[in-house]
Order: sequence, then C-alpha cells, then structure tokens
Amino acid sequence: MSLLVIGSIALDSVETPFGSNQDAVGGSAVFFSYAASLLHPVLAVGVVGNDYPEQELARLAKRGVDLKGVSRADGESFRWRGRYSYDLQNRDTLETRLGVFADFAPTIPEDFREANLIFLGNIDPELQLSVLDQVSKPEFVVCDTMNYWIESKRDALIELMKRIDVLMVNDAEARQLSGDWNIYRAARWILDNGPRLAIIKQGEYGAVLVEPDNRIFYLPAFPLEEIYDPTGAGDAFAGGFLGHLARSNDVSSANLRRAMVYGATMGSFAVERFSVDRFEEIGPAEVTARARAFRELVHFDIPHD
Amino acid sequence: MSLLVIGSIALDSVETPFGSNQDAVGGSAVFFSYAASLLHPVLAVGVVGNDYPEQELARLAKRGVDLKGVSRADGESFRWRGRYSYDLQNRDTLETRLGVFADFAPTIPEDFREANLIFLGNIDPELQLSVLDQVSKPEFVVCDTMNYWIESKRDALIELMKRIDVLMVNDAEARQLSGDWNIYRAARWILDNGPRLAIIKQGEYGAVLVEPDNRIFYLPAFPLEEIYDPTGAGDAFAGGFLGHLARSNDVSSANLRRAMVYGATMGSFAVERFSVDRFEEIGPAEVTARARAFRELVHFDIPHD
Repeated sequence: MSLLVIGSIALDSVETPFGSNQDAVGGSAVFFSYAASLLHPVLAVGVVGNDYPEQELARLAKRGVDLKGVSRADGESFRWRGRYSYDLQNRDTLETRLGVFADFAPTIPEDFREANLIFLGNIDPELQLSVLDQVSKPEFVVCDTMNYWIESKRDALIELMKRIDVLMVNDAEARQLSGDWNIYRAARWILDNGPRLAIIKQGEYGAVLVEPDNRIFYLPAFPLEEIYDPTGAGDAFAGGFLGHLARSNDVSSANLRRAMVYGATMGSFAVERFSVDRFEEIGPAEVTARARAFRELVHFDIPHD
Repeated sequence: MSLLVIGSIALDSVETPFGSNQDAVGGSAVFFSYAASLLHPVLAVGVVGNDYPEQELARLAKRGVDLKGVSRADGESFRWRGRYSYDLQNRDTLETRLGVFADFAPTIPEDFREANLIFLGNIDPELQLSVLDQVSKPEFVVCDTMNYWIESKRDALIELMKRIDVLMVNDAEARQLSGDWNIYRAARWILDNGPRLAIIKQGEYGAVLVEPDNRIFYLPAFPLEEIYDPTGAGDAFAGGFLGHLARSNDVSSANLRRAMVYGATMGSFAVERFSVDRFEEIGPAEVTARARAFRELVHFDIPHD
C-alpha cells in the first residue's frame, strides 16, 4: 500500500534538563517519515523555506521518503522553540514562527493521489480537508490535531472527523475535544462523531486503541531509564503505526494491535535522543527486537482458576 | 499458605464530585481484607475504638477474615476525612484523627505467628518491623508506606527494606524514597536496597512489577468509564495480589504476573463504589471474568516480520 504524510517540516530549538539544540530538524511530517521509513516507503507533502538545509532533504530522500510533494517557498522555514520542565512532564512554547507555513496550501502531486494510507499531521483542519479532496483512493486515513485547532477551528474539525478512519490525539486533546474528562468516554464520543477508531496517547504511560463495541487495547510505553527529548514522540508513533499497516496491507484488529506496538516502538526511539538522531542509529533489527520486547513487557497467562 | 495483614481499620468520610459518605469503613487492612478474602482466607491484625460498629466486624468475619488480631481499645477509632478534585487526580486530607491508632502496638496472636504471606499495610515502619519480629516463618513479605514515613522515619524504613520481599508503593512515593524521578531507576534503587521485587502503582494508568535483572512487567489499569471513589484502590490491589499468591502457593515470575492481574482487578472494583461497597456485590465469577478481560486488554501477537 502507498503511504502519504502531510505535516510540518520544521527547525526546532529545544531545551531539556539534559541539554539543548538549535534549528534541528523537526515537525510532524519529519518525525513521521523518519519512523515510518524504517518499515515502508513514504510520500511526503509539505513546505520548507529558503533556509532549509538541502542536505536534510537529501537525508530524508535516502531513507525512502519521496519528497516530490515538498515545495520550497520564498521565506523562512517553520520554526519552533520550546523548553521542557525538569521532569519532562510539561513544556512551554517559547516561540513559534510560521514562516512559509503561514501561506501553505498543500498540493498533492499527481502520482501521490492514489495513496491509500494517509496521515494528516497536526495542521489546520481546513488544509487537512483539502488534502482529502485531492486524493482519489483513501482507504485508511489517520488524523492528528491539537488544542489550537480544537479551539479555533472546531467546525472544520468536526466535519473532518466524518471523513477519517482514526483520530489519533493525546489525552488532553481528547478531553478538550469531547468535553469529557474520562478518556474512555472521550473515545466513545470520538467514535460517535465519525472515526471508526480512536487512538489516545498518554505519553510516558502508553496509548489506547478503542474500536467499536468498546473493544479496548492498552499498550504501555516502553520502559526507558533515560529520556532526552520528548519532541516528536507522537508523530514517530504515527509513523510506526502506519508504516506497519502499509507494509502488511492488513487493517484487521489483530494487526492494528501490532501496529500500535510498532507505533510505541518508534515513539520510544524518538525520545532517546534529540531531534531525529536516534533513527539514524537504528535499523530493522533494533525495531524488531524492541517490538518483540513489548511482548515480555505485557504478556501473562491465566491458565485456570 | 496463610495470609496475614496488618494495617489501619478506619472510618472514612470522603467527598468526590459524585457524592460523599460519612464514617464509612475504610483503612488499609479493611480494603485489603475485602479484596483478598474473595480469593483466600485472611488473618487480620489491627485496632478499633469503642465506636467501631460491631456489625462491620461481623461483616468482615463472615467473609473469612479472622479478626482474632483485631483489638478493641478505649477511645475513638481512626478517622480520615478527604476531598477529591473534580477529576479525581488529587485529594486533600481535611482531617486525620488517630484515636486509638496513636498508641497501637501490634501484638500478633499466637496462632497467626506462622503466617507465611504478610502484608504490612501503611503504618509506622517501626511497627512494621515489630510485626516481622513476631512472626516465625515469613516467606513473602509485602510492604507499603507513604510520604509521611519516608520523611519522618527514613532510617527505620531503610532497615525494614532489608527484611521484606516486595516494596509496593505508588510512583510519587517511589520517587520521594529513591530521589529519582524516573520510576524504572527508582525501582532499581529499591532493589539495590533490599527487596527483591518492586511494585510501583500509577493509579489510573496501571502498575509495574520490577524483578531482578531489570525484568519488567507493566499492567495497565482496567478501563473504567465511571470511577466514584479512588480511596482504597492500592490496598485492594495488594489484597488481590497476595490473595492470589496465597491460594496458588507459587511465587514464580509467571504467577507474580497473574497476581498483578488479580491486584489490578481488585483495585478496579474498589473504585467503582464508595468504601468497600463494590466487594459486597461481586463474587468469584466477577473476579475471574475481569481478570480474564485483562488478557483482551493487553494481548497481541507478533508472528513474524
């Protein structure tokens, strides 16, 4: 299956208790692509400014990411600067400069339009809708969003929800969107409003997949003794999730659970280094080993009473 | 195996967004006993005042809880009054009246002294040590504690840790005790200081069992759409955990994982009603069904890549 991502391509400056970086590659499309490309080729759509390092695009291309949909516009690339608290539980956005992203109107290249697996990274829901208008065979659409859009573009988001298969958000977003504090009721609200699946991410705790008839799968996060930079973990999760579905061409319940495992695997790699650095250190063997380690983490048997 | 619990026998007054109660039965020994007695008989040690309702002791006795170790002292029973925040994430203690608990010096009845599974509920670590001095065949000792003792009786707690098998605490307590924010490093610190196992509870998220050589088992909490009163969930968890070990007479790794499932099962029942009310509504069939439902919640297979 062909896998398309649309999202931000950013330069991030991040401060954590363990160090900081400056203008490192980031953005939802980039974290997604680094993770997914370990499992399956990716078609990427986005925009960069004049200042975006050519070698960074080359690094992505070398990983099997088709950048035909990434345009270079006159101006500055999207920049985000943030600082994490001592325990990495909270982050403050210190600066957001939209740059060329402010006027971004995604155009899907002709030969991307038959993509059937689609990740709509966290951008304006109206742009997410315009992407769906341009693709001809969307079979499985996963969509992320954030508090800013839930507040400012709620109607577009509600319209979008009718056209996607999975809403993949974190717990705070699920609560804000549904108006319900309980994440399982929030998930039910999401399913009542369009998507047939909800995935709610809970950061260091794990992530839950909710299917119709209240079928619930909860996967804890991979236990890590060292976490350097949580930035991009959610997008890497999406990349692992959709990368696995794309390579296996199977959206059965059992395979959705496996996809969650690959999502959590990629999320755990993302936070082990700054930016996308960890993805440069690992290959298929590390991915498989960690995905299998999840079995040992959660499995038990109850033979009889 | 014989299972002994020592802890508080209290009258709780709790306010939650969903209602409140007044002088309802509570305390670590009581929540533990209600949960454990669904799986195995319990020997209870504690103290009550003149005002403690006789019929509440009769209700416990009827469940297979041997109250020979529960003395009635002259004075008022231990009382706790607390209020939970709108989302049940935080609670304020409004009042604690120690009453007869202030002068409690546990005496283990002669025929309880050969108990081999022991739960030291959250009381002064010096009293917990005195219990261990009175039992002759402790094979598996699980100990809880809280911030108050970590601050005020750290030395006794450190001494106690050398004589127990499992420290079972929540994440905030593990962090405070170890001085380490990361719960997996905190668990390693615990194992380096005596216990051979650490169980760290994370409330609505789940609980982790850490064994030597960094073997980790993470069990999510049972997904509940309605939570009425979190009071006693941790003690009910301990009751399910030790009740299962007692009835199965097996502390292998595989069975410790099962015991975690029974712990989480009992914790999830505890929060579905005020006080111990839910335990009066359920029997072995409900316990088994929910424990088995955990399989569906977490299991996946990764057949091949």
